[in-house]
Amino acid sequence: MAEYRFSKKMAELKPSAIREIFKSLGQPGSIAFSAGNPAPESFPAEFISRAAADILANQPVLALQYSITEGYMPLREAVAARLRERFATGKDGDMVLIVSGGQQGIELTAKVMCDEGDTVIAEEPSFIGALNAFRSLGLNIAGVPMEDDGMNIEALERELKSNPRAKIIYTIPTFHNPCGITTTLGKRRAVYELARRYGAIIIEDNPYGELRFSGDEVPTIKSLDTEGIVVYCGSFSKILSPGMRVGFVCAPEQIAQKIVVAKQVEDVHTNIFFQLIAHKFMTEFDIDGHIENIRKLYKHKCGLMLDAMASELPGDFKWTKPEGGLFVWCTLPERLDVNKFVKDAAAEKVFVVPGDAFRCDLSKTINAVRLNYSTPSEEEIERGIEILGQIAKNKK
Amino acid sequence: MAEYRFSKKMAELKPSAIREIFKSLGQPGSIAFSAGNPAPESFPAEFISRAAADILANQPVLALQYSITEGYMPLREAVAARLRERFATGKDGDMVLIVSGGQQGIELTAKVMCDEGDTVIAEEPSFIGALNAFRSLGLNIAGVPMEDDGMNIEALERELKSNPRAKIIYTIPTFHNPCGITTTLGKRRAVYELARRYGAIIIEDNPYGELRFSGDEVPTIKSLDTEGIVVYCGSFSKILSPGMRVGFVCAPEQIAQKIVVAKQVEDVHTNIFFQLIAHKFMTEFDIDGHIENIRKLYKHKCGLMLDAMASELPGDFKWTKPEGGLFVWCTLPERLDVNKFVKDAAAEKVFVVPGDAFRCDLSKTINAVRLNYSTPSEEEIERGIEILGQIAKNKK
Repeated sequence: MAEYRFSKKMAELKPSAIREIFKSLGQPGSIAFSAGNPAPESFPAEFISRAAADILANQPVLALQYSITEGYMPLREAVAARLRERFATGKDGDMVLIVSGGQQGIELTAKVMCDEGDTVIAEEPSFIGALNAFRSLGLNIAGVPMEDDGMNIEALERELKSNPRAKIIYTIPTFHNPCGITTTLGKRRAVYELARRYGAIIIEDNPYGELRFSGDEVPTIKSLDTEGIVVYCGSFSKILSPGMRVGFVCAPEQIAQKIVVAKQVEDVHTNIFFQLIAHKFMTEFDIDGHIENIRKLYKHKCGLMLDAMASELPGDFKWTKPEGGLFVWCTLPERLDVNKFVKDAAAEKVFVVPGDAFRCDLSKTINAVRLNYSTPSEEEIERGIEILGQIAKNKK
Repeated sequence: MAEYRFSKKMAELKPSAIREIFKSLGQPGSIAFSAGNPAPESFPAEFISRAAADILANQPVLALQYSITEGYMPLREAVAARLRERFATGKDGDMVLIVSGGQQGIELTAKVMCDEGDTVIAEEPSFIGALNAFRSLGLNIAGVPMEDDGMNIEALERELKSNPRAKIIYTIPTFHNPCGITTTLGKRRAVYELARRYGAIIIEDNPYGELRFSGDEVPTIKSLDTEGIVVYCGSFSKILSPGMRVGFVCAPEQIAQKIVVAKQVEDVHTNIFFQLIAHKFMTEFDIDGHIENIRKLYKHKCGLMLDAMASELPGDFKWTKPEGGLFVWCTLPERLDVNKFVKDAAAEKVFVVPGDAFRCDLSKTINAVRLNYSTPSEEEIERGIEILGQIAKNKK
C-alpha cells in the first residue's frame, strides 16, 4: 500500500484530542455541557416546513439549480438592511456575501489575506474552529490574553510590533467563545485603532450578537470601520438552524470580491434552497419575536447554571457571568488538574470541554473548562453542575 | 481608505474573463450553450417536496441541528453500496465521505496532499473549477494534451519525470469536461500505473458517470486501485440537484481522515437536511428509473445538437461525439479566431464558452468552444446551432 506524503500544514493539524474523552457522549443519561449547539427547542421547524413547501411548489428550479457564488440577492439585501438598522454595521463600500456558515467566512478571509507563514493574532483562548482554519492555511497564531473586558491591549500592540507578518486580528468581541465575555467599547476602539495603525485586517466574528439577554448593546467593531479594514462574519446558525449552513460576511468590497473568487473554488455557492428559507425567515416570519424567545430561553438556562454553580462549586472556582451567547467559562483552582477533572466528569457522564481545546499556544495548559447551557435541559443543568461540584470537592 | 495586501495565490487568481462576454446572458431570447447546468426539467421537485415535509415532521432536530463532518452515516453507506455494486468502486480500506459538492472534494484533496509550489498534472483542457482550486492553493498546473481516447500518456510520463513535486494527477476520464471524451480502459490503466510508479495520487473526478446514453461502460480508475492512490469524487448535482450542494468522496482511509480535518475548518459539515433528502432519494425513490429518464433526455438533446452541427457547421469544423455527460467540444478551423467567434455569437445572443476558459497553460490559446446541450430547449439547440453556423460561414 502507498505511503502518503500529506501537505505540511495538514500533516500537523490533528483532529481534536477531546474526541477520545467524548466517546461515550450520547449514551443514555449523559449530560452534554460540551456542545456549541443552539437549543433544539428553538428551531422553527413548522415555519421551515411551510416555507419549504411553498418554495418547492412555486420556485423549484431556482431552489434546485446552480446559483451564483455571491449568494441570493434578496437575502444579501435583507441581511445588509438588518445589519445596518439593527447594529449600524456596514457602510457604502461594504458588500454582504452569503457563505456556508460563519466558519467559511473566517476561513476564506484568512485565505485571501494571508500567505503561508503569515501571522494571525487571536484572543487566548479562542474558538477552535477559527484557530484550526488558520493552521490549515499554514499560518502562525499569536495569542493575546483575554481579560474580563476583552483582550489585553498592551499585549496586542506588542504582538503587532514584533510581528511584521501579522496580517489579521481575529476577535469575538460579543459573548466570546469560549469565555462568554463581551469586549467593552473602549477596548473595541483600541483594537480598531491598533489594526489601523499597524495595517492589519480585523475579522470580527459575531455568531451570537443577536443573543443578548442582559446588559446594554455594545457597538460592533465593524460599526467603527471608517477605513474598510474590518470583515464581519455572522450566521443564521444560532437564530434559525446550524444544520442548514448559511452564514454571511460583511466586508469592504475589494476584499469581498476576492472572497467570492476563493469561495467559488471551495463549494461554488452556498446551498440555495436554505438561502431562500433564510430570506423568508427574515421577511415573512416574526424574526424579532423568535429571537426574543431564544433570548428568554437562554437567559433562563444561563441563570439556572450560574445559580447552580454558586451553590455547588467550591469557593476557589471562578467563572464568567455572560450577558448573552451560549457559554460560561469556569477557571479551576491550581490544586486541580483540568484534564483529570474533565476525565473524571466524563466518567460520571458529564461532558465539558477542557481549556486546552481553545489554545493559541499549544505548549501551554489552560486550567479552565467551557460550559454550554443552551443544549442541556433544565434538569440536566442542575444535575450536571451538582456532579461537577462533587468532583471539585473530591467527593467523586 | 486602506490598501489591501492580498495573499499571493489569491492576488493572481482573477474572476473569469468570460463574465464580461456573458453580461447579456439571461436577456429574453438568449440561448445558453455556456452552462454546465443539468436540465431543469430533470429535477424531481415533487419527490423532494414530499421528502422535505416528511423529514421536517419526523426528524426536525436531526435535519436542523449541527451534524458531524464525515456526513450522515446512512447516506455514506448508501453511496458506498451504490459505488461498489454499480461501478465496482471502493474497497476495504476506502472510506466514503459527504462533501459540499464534487468541487469541495477536489479542493480538499489537493489541500491535504499539496504544499504551495507543488504541481498538479491535469488534462489540457480541463475543468476550470478544479484548475482554479489548485491555483487558489498556490499550486502549479502542468497540462497534458487531451486526445480522442484520453490524455497523451507519453506527455504524462514526461511531466511526472520532470516534476519531482508532481503530487496529483487530476483527471475526468468519463464524459470529460469540456471535451465530452471518455478515456479508454487501456489509457486508464496506463495513467494508474504511472501514478503508482511516480508516487502520485490520482483525483478521479466523475460527476457525469451515471449519465451514459450510448456505448459501453468503462471501469472507473478507482476500481483498479489496489494501492490506495485514487481519490474518487462524485456528486448528486447531475442526478438530483446541484443547488443543494451535496457530493461525495471515496478515498483511502488515511487520506479521508485528513480530508475530514480540512473540511471541518471550511464549513463544519455539509448541510444535513439535503443529506437526508439524498438518502431518501437513494433508498425510497426509483433512482434508477429517474437516471434512465435523464439519460434518455440527454441522448435526445445531444443527438439534436450533433445533427444540427452536421448540417449547419462548415466542413472545416470538428467536434467530439459524447457517449454521455453534458458537453460537446467543437474545434474551430485556423481561419477563425475563437475569441472573436464567441463575441460574435454573444452579439447574436448565443453563448458558448471559449477554449481559453479551460487552459492549464494561461499563455496558450485553445481554438475551440464548449457547447452544453442539457440546459437549452430543443428549439434553442436548433436555432442556436443555426446561428453559430451562420457566423462560422461569415454570414452574420
